[in-house]
Amino acid sequence: MPNAKNTVEPVILKGFQDFFPEDLIARRQIIRTIESVFELYGFAPLETPAMEYLEVLLGSGGEAANKELFRLESPEGDAVALRFDLTVPFARMIAQYPDRLKPPVRRYAIGPVWRADKPGPGRFRQFVQCDADIAGAANIAADAEIIALMAAIMDALGARDYAILINNRKLIDALLDHCGIVEEARQKHVLRVIDKREKVGVDKVRLELGEGRVDESGDPIPGVHLDDATIDAILALVAIAGDSRADTVARLADALPDTSAAREALQEMRELADILAAIGVPEAHARFEPSLARGLDYYTGAVFETVFSNAREFGSVMGGGRYDGLTGRFAADRAIPCTGTSVGLDRFCAALKHLGLLECAATPVQVLVVTIGNVPKAETMRLAAELRAAGIRTETYFAARKKTQMGAQLSHADHYGIPVAVIVGEDELARGLVSVKDLRAGKARRADITDRDAYRQAGKTAQVTIPRTEMIAEIRRILVM
Amino acid sequence: MPNAKNTVEPVILKGFQDFFPEDLIARRQIIRTIESVFELYGFAPLETPAMEYLEVLLGSGGEAANKELFRLESPEGDAVALRFDLTVPFARMIAQYPDRLKPPVRRYAIGPVWRADKPGPGRFRQFVQCDADIAGAANIAADAEIIALMAAIMDALGARDYAILINNRKLIDALLDHCGIVEEARQKHVLRVIDKREKVGVDKVRLELGEGRVDESGDPIPGVHLDDATIDAILALVAIAGDSRADTVARLADALPDTSAAREALQEMRELADILAAIGVPEAHARFEPSLARGLDYYTGAVFETVFSNAREFGSVMGGGRYDGLTGRFAADRAIPCTGTSVGLDRFCAALKHLGLLECAATPVQVLVVTIGNVPKAETMRLAAELRAAGIRTETYFAARKKTQMGAQLSHADHYGIPVAVIVGEDELARGLVSVKDLRAGKARRADITDRDAYRQAGKTAQVTIPRTEMIAEIRRILVM
Repeated sequence: MPNAKNTVEPVILKGFQDFFPEDLIARRQIIRTIESVFELYGFAPLETPAMEYLEVLLGSGGEAANKELFRLESPEGDAVALRFDLTVPFARMIAQYPDRLKPPVRRYAIGPVWRADKPGPGRFRQFVQCDADIAGAANIAADAEIIALMAAIMDALGARDYAILINNRKLIDALLDHCGIVEEARQKHVLRVIDKREKVGVDKVRLELGEGRVDESGDPIPGVHLDDATIDAILALVAIAGDSRADTVARLADALPDTSAAREALQEMRELADILAAIGVPEAHARFEPSLARGLDYYTGAVFETVFSNAREFGSVMGGGRYDGLTGRFAADRAIPCTGTSVGLDRFCAALKHLGLLECAATPVQVLVVTIGNVPKAETMRLAAELRAAGIRTETYFAARKKTQMGAQLSHADHYGIPVAVIVGEDELARGLVSVKDLRAGKARRADITDRDAYRQAGKTAQVTIPRTEMIAEIRRILVM
Repeated sequence: MPNAKNTVEPVILKGFQDFFPEDLIARRQIIRTIESVFELYGFAPLETPAMEYLEVLLGSGGEAANKELFRLESPEGDAVALRFDLTVPFARMIAQYPDRLKPPVRRYAIGPVWRADKPGPGRFRQFVQCDADIAGAANIAADAEIIALMAAIMDALGARDYAILINNRKLIDALLDHCGIVEEARQKHVLRVIDKREKVGVDKVRLELGEGRVDESGDPIPGVHLDDATIDAILALVAIAGDSRADTVARLADALPDTSAAREALQEMRELADILAAIGVPEAHARFEPSLARGLDYYTGAVFETVFSNAREFGSVMGGGRYDGLTGRFAADRAIPCTGTSVGLDRFCAALKHLGLLECAATPVQVLVVTIGNVPKAETMRLAAELRAAGIRTETYFAARKKTQMGAQLSHADHYGIPVAVIVGEDELARGLVSVKDLRAGKARRADITDRDAYRQAGKTAQVTIPRTEMIAEIRRILVM
């Protein structure tokens, strides 16, 4: 027998989440909606395992430094790690099965990814991504299709006030090029700073592009040390916002020097604007945002992010873009052009809840069978079987002896949010009767009552004693089934 | 630019699986069925992360030796590991959240688990389990409810020939006790050998209980070295099979000595038999099997396994039992009685496929929009939008330039098993026409044709050119929507 000293503390791993029924019911609802929109847009599911060879995840170039990986060792002694996104494993799959996954490939995947980051509020080390990607289509139309898909997901979830922000990595490249910022580390630094504009405001971005600044906690944030004219040029360009997508492209064309890099970027943006207009994506739901840079350096063309306009604090709930170079990791001469998007389920869920767009039950269970006195267990189960055969999700209550009083059973239903109790005793069983109690109605009626007797009475009126033959109809009425 | 030497081999990790659309459509169908039966029986979902503190998974007793864990280190330097089942994390959750998860708790969980075992055919290092457990119910009725649940899953999936094999760990304890086998390691050895009876046959079991034997590959299998009388007693007892569950219990009672251990085991089995009879679980679908031992040593009472009677080679597709001691790991004085079952999704899937009980599409995509000539991409997308608005899952084809001929597009549909192609050219667009091609019918008609012209003609007859206004009705007709 283990003694108290031998016991283990029951505690979840730091940075991870446990989910309860109400979370999971909400998440399932969102996942099923996303899944059906993915399929409506012609994407088919593919699934890869949680871990991959380290080299597959990082490439041969030693990009190890900036990836927060959960590393482990295979039983064969190979270096492996948990996947940090769903994109790299997809790239591995299309490279590994060229005969089976002939381009163009539209695949979606929904599953957890892991990052050994510093956890914080709303930041976890395991989180679910819902990705849809098109591999083997270099055409801008494929990017437009991804944008239409993102809009369709928002629409399907009942979102009204949202914006898909669109930019093109080539536009930023043209800008950096024009400003003479050619060193890669410096380019990345500028990108990171520009990308913060929405979050920290233009004044702080100006400081960070220049000499740097000190943040709220007193920590110094190093600057890029650009001169004022360059900073002005960058800030002016990323602030451009036209009356429409076409207008924004026209203004960008006016502001940018006529280099081949700029022409290429503008041509792609113009083509995207044309397609989006032709297929009727509303201007309010998708606009160019020249400050959008996105963190990942594998993007090569269009980039996108979706925000709730009325809940900007949740940040980007979907992101993505074109990454034509990634599969080159596996075959340098046969890189497959790819574009896609990723929905961050946790953030999406939090935003939808905040906006009141998610109303979910606390439990899938609809009925608790409550027994009084010495009703045989088999009778309880027969009653449950009758309800289940009618498609009613039913729990039977089998607890420790001290917890079998009716009060304990009704408390159980209340604690877990089960909406209906079916109550039987030996006497009712013999007479072919049951009591059906609407626990939500009883609760609602009593909510405003302070008088003790009236309170008790209100609870009782939510309960009817009826012939067993009418039980299912009565429950369906209460549940509005 | 990376050169060829810098590329990474695109290869999945040894012992793991990638899944393609047809696998995933089948798996989703099974998962949704299992999930809805779990909920019908009053189970609510809970979810835990992929990894736990090592101590949580192994307990304080150093059960490390026989668990094949994928171990890693948390960013804080703690020893952690990927979960090897869903039961231990559930036990951790009920111990960690006693106020929220008040017993009795019925929870289900569906998710991957990881074992660093030796992989083999059908044996993978990551596999999905679907578990349902009741915590806080010591009553035999809870075990009966789990058995009814297992039967309901088989019924919901259309299985007819199946058997839930039931035993009680206390019966085996009584037997071992009676035979004077008291040392734990020796007891476990006997259990392991008995459990193989179904797989290797009684003669080999007899050898293994005695002097040991040499297996097919010439490797020696050590024996338990019991004397012949003991072996006879064990084999006689585990071979007992009555005409009904009640009859089996009666025969076991005749065969066992009247010890308190035996009385307790028989009393539990009798009670279970009574409830199963009362709730109408058919004798053919649930029977006592005294040789059933189950590998895990945490079982303390009833144990169960489900097999397809007409596909025994797939082994146990669901297993489970009562484990009243597991939560004692976290609080020795407050162990919560638990019982439950676990469905092995991979094996289940394989068995259902083998039995022809799983018929799934190769892809969720229903229509490919095929364009001829210089149809603008926006027109293709508008056509797709029309189909999607009608709920038809539609892929648009945007490929590399060399792959845009109609033949390549139709090959694409064929390769991925897309059943319908909608074909438009500029001329059709202008005239408000589309061609709808039933790719399955074309294929079916051509299957028996050897004449070349007739073959071509058969392919064509599966294609109609119709006004665009009739397109959706025609597709629905083909897809029988």
